[in-house]
Parts: sequence; structure tokens; C-alpha cells
Amino acid sequence: MSAQKNIAVVLSGCGVYDGAEIHESVFTLYAIEQLGYNYQIYAPDITQAQVINHTNGNQTNESRNVLIESARIARGNIKPLNELKCDDHSAIIFPGGFGVAKNLCSFAIDGSNCSVNKDVETVIKTFHKSNKPIGAMCISPALIVRVLNTGEVTIGDDTSTATAIVKMGGKHANTNHEQIVIDNINKLVSTPCYMLNATISQIANGTMNLVKAVIKLSN
Amino acid sequence: MSAQKNIAVVLSGCGVYDGAEIHESVFTLYAIEQLGYNYQIYAPDITQAQVINHTNGNQTNESRNVLIESARIARGNIKPLNELKCDDHSAIIFPGGFGVAKNLCSFAIDGSNCSVNKDVETVIKTFHKSNKPIGAMCISPALIVRVLNTGEVTIGDDTSTATAIVKMGGKHANTNHEQIVIDNINKLVSTPCYMLNATISQIANGTMNLVKAVIKLSN
Repeated sequence: MSAQKNIAVVLSGCGVYDGAEIHESVFTLYAIEQLGYNYQIYAPDITQAQVINHTNGNQTNESRNVLIESARIARGNIKPLNELKCDDHSAIIFPGGFGVAKNLCSFAIDGSNCSVNKDVETVIKTFHKSNKPIGAMCISPALIVRVLNTGEVTIGDDTSTATAIVKMGGKHANTNHEQIVIDNINKLVSTPCYMLNATISQIANGTMNLVKAVIKLSN
Repeated sequence: MSAQKNIAVVLSGCGVYDGAEIHESVFTLYAIEQLGYNYQIYAPDITQAQVINHTNGNQTNESRNVLIESARIARGNIKPLNELKCDDHSAIIFPGGFGVAKNLCSFAIDGSNCSVNKDVETVIKTFHKSNKPIGAMCISPALIVRVLNTGEVTIGDDTSTATAIVKMGGKHANTNHEQIVIDNINKLVSTPCYMLNATISQIANGTMNLVKAVIKLSN
């Protein structure tokens, strides 16, 4: 399997409020396959920051592992993030969900001063240095800008998140459903997904637009 | 919102090995919306039969609730199954996953002698008596036949499951990826999905074919 046709997808759990957003994750895999590419799913082998009851938003006293929960979306076909080799992939994509801002970094709690998981930081820096495209959906652009201290991205139109992105060294462009922002210098592609109050069809379309742009930048 | 344009979707958890198959569930919601219909998601408020570590297939000693885990796929927009009123919906669809055969009924353990959750049984019988279509994906046709003691369905080409379906009073037709079987008398539509070794695109297409047929039967 050629590295030029294989995209790394990084998940952060399984469920919008404490992990990877499920619809965004599934449509990412689907778009990659529809466009003739392969994917390999990764997630960090760490304990989740929180477990949230998705019927009421309350935190529970359970403990769950990000890799093990992400494996639900991956149907078991997943690798620990510290096994990801940039050489094996032509691009990397981060679907959204609070898991990005709770497990991959601490943006949900610490905002622009957030810390980033070391393996996540290494992976983002390596793809950036290698001039390989990075796709960032929903809240993920905040993570990417925190690591790179640069980048023009979108998270939709949320003012406080946009302000934090600027504080971390990035530029923010407001967008509506299904729109993408392409930063050709840093090879970043971003789209708001459920950072806006979207329908599932808008998620499918926005994700397809992002994956198309990521693949185009990888050629 | 007209009942004639609203389809009930019943989930059985979140993850192929102990709950609802995530890809099948997401593409069901997507297909319903793409075809101009609305959906309401339901799940029984019961403890899961098992919790499976999806990285290795091993059972863990955790306890999880089917409604609460299904809410991850539903992004919180979900109701307990015992609140489902047939009058509010034009059709009902059961995505697959082992949750159907472990949580909605005991088919995974007891085969053709399996017991069925009472609320699940009531819902299936009510839609059948009301002459409203029932869509059954992956392993779900085994559940439907167990409740109705009749029905021509498909679960793909697995011989032992097909034999159990016949034992429970049904007929089985072998199918390949994306194919559906329509039982016009009982208004059942079924498709194999991940009962075959499918790609995510085949799941999307098979699900779309099923939802189209369910909607056609509901008119």
C-alpha cells in the first residue's frame, strides 16, 4: 500500500462530549475511501480526561481509554498514535469532538494556554515539517495552531474560540456550513462541522470538501 | 413534524462488538435526511449484556447502559424505547451490530431460542400490525423474525444464521454487498451490511438502498 495514497486519521475517543465526534469521524473515513485513498486510524493510548453521559451532559465517575474507545469507530482496526510514522502517509486528518480539546490537548479547560499531548505535538510538527497536508475539523484547528503557533484556519464563527486562535499565533476566517479554509503555506485545511449547528448532510458535505482539498494539497 | 415523514431508528449501544454498529447507524441517519425524511432515535434504557474492548475483543468488567451509550451516536438527541409511539412514525429501522443480538435480544448466546426485550418485542409487533415498514440491517433480521415468527429476509450468506432464521419461522435469501431483500407481505426490508466483509462505501450504499425501499413501502 503506497504511502502516497494512505491518510492517517487521528481519533480522540468515541462521542462528541468526551471523545471524537462520531459523524465527523465516519464521514472522514467514507470520504477518503470514496476518493480512492486508504486510511489508517490512530489514537493516543491514554486515559480520557472525562467520561460524559451523552443523554444529559453530566460527568460520570468512570475511567475510559482514548485508544480503546476510538476502536469502536475503527471497528478494531486502529493503532496507538506513538506508532504513527509520517513516511507511511501522504496526509493527516483530525476529526473534531470535545475529545480533541480534552484528550489531545487541554484547550477545553485552559484555552489559549493549553498543553498538548506529546505524541500529538510530535505528529503535527512532523507532518508540518515534511510539508504534508493536515486536515482539521470542528475544534481541531485550535489544536493545530497551538502546536504550530501559526496557520490560517476556521472553526466557524465562534468569537471566543476565534480570539483564542489569534492569541496562539493563528489567523481565523469565519465560515458557514460546508465551507473550508485552505492555508497553502502551512498546508492546512479546516472546516467548521459541528462547531456550527449543522445537519448530518452538512457534516458529510463539509467533510468531503475538506478531504478533497487535503488530497489535492498532497499531490 | 408529520408522522408520515418521520422514521424511528432503534440503536442498541455504541460499537459493533457490544452495541450498535456505528457506521451502519450513521449512514442510516444520513440516508433518511438525504431522502427528505426526519428521524427520531430510540434505545432501551437497560444495562448492556457485555462491554467489549474493541481493540482486542475481550470482555471487560465494566457496566454500561444501552440508552446512554447509544446517545453518543445520537449526540444526545435520543429517547427511551418505551416512549416510542408507532403513530408518530411512518416506519422503523434497526441498524446492526452485536448489540442487536446481545441487548435487544439474546440471539448471540441463545440462537433460535433467544429471548427478546419486552419493549423491543412490543414495538416490532405494533409496527407490523399497523402495516408500517420495518428496516433490518446486518443481524437485525434475526431479531425481527424471532418476534414475528415469519418474514423473508437476508443476513448475507452466513449459513448458521440463515438456518436459525428458518428455525424461527422465517425464509432466508442469500445476498451480496449492497443488495436488499423486500418482503412485501410483511413490509420488511433487510440488507447484510457488515454481516459480509464490507467496505465503508458498501455500507453507505446498502444502507441507502434499504432506506429508499423502506420509504417506498411507507407510502
